[in-house]
Amino acid sequence: MLVTGEANRRYLSGFTGTAATLLISSQDRRLVTDSRYTEQATRQAAGYDVIENVDTLGVVAGWIAARGIDRLGVESEHTSLKQHRELVERLAEESQAAEVKPLDGLVEEQRVVKDEAELALLREAVRLADDVMTAAGEAVAPGMSERELSLELERLIREAGDGPSFPTIVAGGPNAAMAHHSPGERPIGAGEPVIVDLGVRLDGYCSDITRTFAAGGADAQFDEIYRIVLKAQAATEAGTRAGMTGRVADALAREVISDAGYGGSFGHGTGHGVGLEIHEAPTLSPRGANVLAAGAVVSVEPGIYLPNWGGVRIEDLVVVEADGVDVLTQAPK
Amino acid sequence: MLVTGEANRRYLSGFTGTAATLLISSQDRRLVTDSRYTEQATRQAAGYDVIENVDTLGVVAGWIAARGIDRLGVESEHTSLKQHRELVERLAEESQAAEVKPLDGLVEEQRVVKDEAELALLREAVRLADDVMTAAGEAVAPGMSERELSLELERLIREAGDGPSFPTIVAGGPNAAMAHHSPGERPIGAGEPVIVDLGVRLDGYCSDITRTFAAGGADAQFDEIYRIVLKAQAATEAGTRAGMTGRVADALAREVISDAGYGGSFGHGTGHGVGLEIHEAPTLSPRGANVLAAGAVVSVEPGIYLPNWGGVRIEDLVVVEADGVDVLTQAPK
Repeated sequence: MLVTGEANRRYLSGFTGTAATLLISSQDRRLVTDSRYTEQATRQAAGYDVIENVDTLGVVAGWIAARGIDRLGVESEHTSLKQHRELVERLAEESQAAEVKPLDGLVEEQRVVKDEAELALLREAVRLADDVMTAAGEAVAPGMSERELSLELERLIREAGDGPSFPTIVAGGPNAAMAHHSPGERPIGAGEPVIVDLGVRLDGYCSDITRTFAAGGADAQFDEIYRIVLKAQAATEAGTRAGMTGRVADALAREVISDAGYGGSFGHGTGHGVGLEIHEAPTLSPRGANVLAAGAVVSVEPGIYLPNWGGVRIEDLVVVEADGVDVLTQAPK
Repeated sequence: MLVTGEANRRYLSGFTGTAATLLISSQDRRLVTDSRYTEQATRQAAGYDVIENVDTLGVVAGWIAARGIDRLGVESEHTSLKQHRELVERLAEESQAAEVKPLDGLVEEQRVVKDEAELALLREAVRLADDVMTAAGEAVAPGMSERELSLELERLIREAGDGPSFPTIVAGGPNAAMAHHSPGERPIGAGEPVIVDLGVRLDGYCSDITRTFAAGGADAQFDEIYRIVLKAQAATEAGTRAGMTGRVADALAREVISDAGYGGSFGHGTGHGVGLEIHEAPTLSPRGANVLAAGAVVSVEPGIYLPNWGGVRIEDLVVVEADGVDVLTQAPK
């Protein structure tokens, strides 16, 4: 099998660079990269033979011939039509008859259940994000621009860990009606909802946390919406357990919001897996047919978004366990 | 045609979010996205009908039926085997007989030649990066860790523009032998080569600059290697012009380095296009068959890397013109 997806490659080999292909057979493991990464790969990828060669397809063809490989798996999510065509053409040119077989999510499935070392990193990444979010709650104030607050938070994130898991979201007032707003020059108004969504990356592992603030005090509308979202989140955290589908877990939040009359204002899923990628399996959404496994780490992040007014989203990370969830996130709500 | 590549989608539509598909026919232009991005897409994507729907394939099937489309292009570089399979299966399910045709680099080709508005943004992004690099030259000092310097530079980058074009590289001493080293805790030693490679993103457009410093003064080896790399860069900037292939431009640098006896220590290409992506067409390398077009913006970045000692790389951005190049980068060497 060839492994080219960045997170999958890192998960299997330990190599953290951005360019390499893993060649894995029952007989050996090879990592092909270019001269920029040879030293790094040799240090990081224990158990892999590191091969410095810009002609990856040539190395693959030689390996197939040497090992007598007749079926070659490729990652269907991480192999483009062009890469696939070039691979098939090259094998034909070099008279290698191996069948190229696209495989779905083989490594992603292995990544769902976190081991102890991964959980330790995730816990620490969450703890660091908690601290940054606590600082956000202290810093947010009317008159400050979204951009100003996000710059300060990204500075704290960089000091705390290896950098942000994703670009920090600070969305005030009407901008908070857009679940993925980019921070701009707009000053935060008194009493407006301000959604802050951020994460800290630590040794490759991501945390992800959202809190919504009312800078300078909440009004009645903020209070109403906030309580509904918080109740939806609490219901999901109380009711989710291993063995449940992502759809059932999502419904725990969705029912609370629908019952309160805001069903049409919660346009995204309740959660997603988090690990080496900020979004990974499993999915907690109306389309989430996946069964939640014990040891999966997922977000629980219901929200309500009202055009012109703004929105509220509250997000924790939790570990799915046999009889419930372990809530990792501790920043105040 | 469906357009899913992030930079291509932005180039054509103006939409800066991370999730959307463009549907482009001779008759209309549609942008399909989910509720997180509807408001943003409506503001940004002038000339596109914004459709909020998580079932993108369903929208595509309906569009094909409504418009009588019989050939549907997809981007071969940005369509995975899985996405392709799901598209083909869905069209069959919905009895749409359109032929799905993978197309190579159609939008990328349009992006090579920058128009005046793009050049203005790139010039400004380069100017901002020049300032950060000038600050780097003033700040770099023995005893400072790579990480400490990179954090300070990323802070300056965020203040100057929309953020870094890529994670800032600070590589001191032996680490500078790795062209793409991640900054670590290692303190910079006196006289060691320190490679700093950074970029500022401005309205989506990237700059890219590398300088190599000798913190606390250069020794004879640094001086020798530095002069060779600088000479290779000067030869490339003096000799490159539109109509030349990337291979010929690359050879201008490579010959200087080979003639000096370091041919085996320059393991990457001399340059690459820069624009909405930090690496885009064209390529200046021994494999660069592409002809350089007037109006392309490319890096010129020869380097020499010696295991255990370190390396030197010097990188400018230039605009390719009919009779030479316009060197944008002005930070001191």
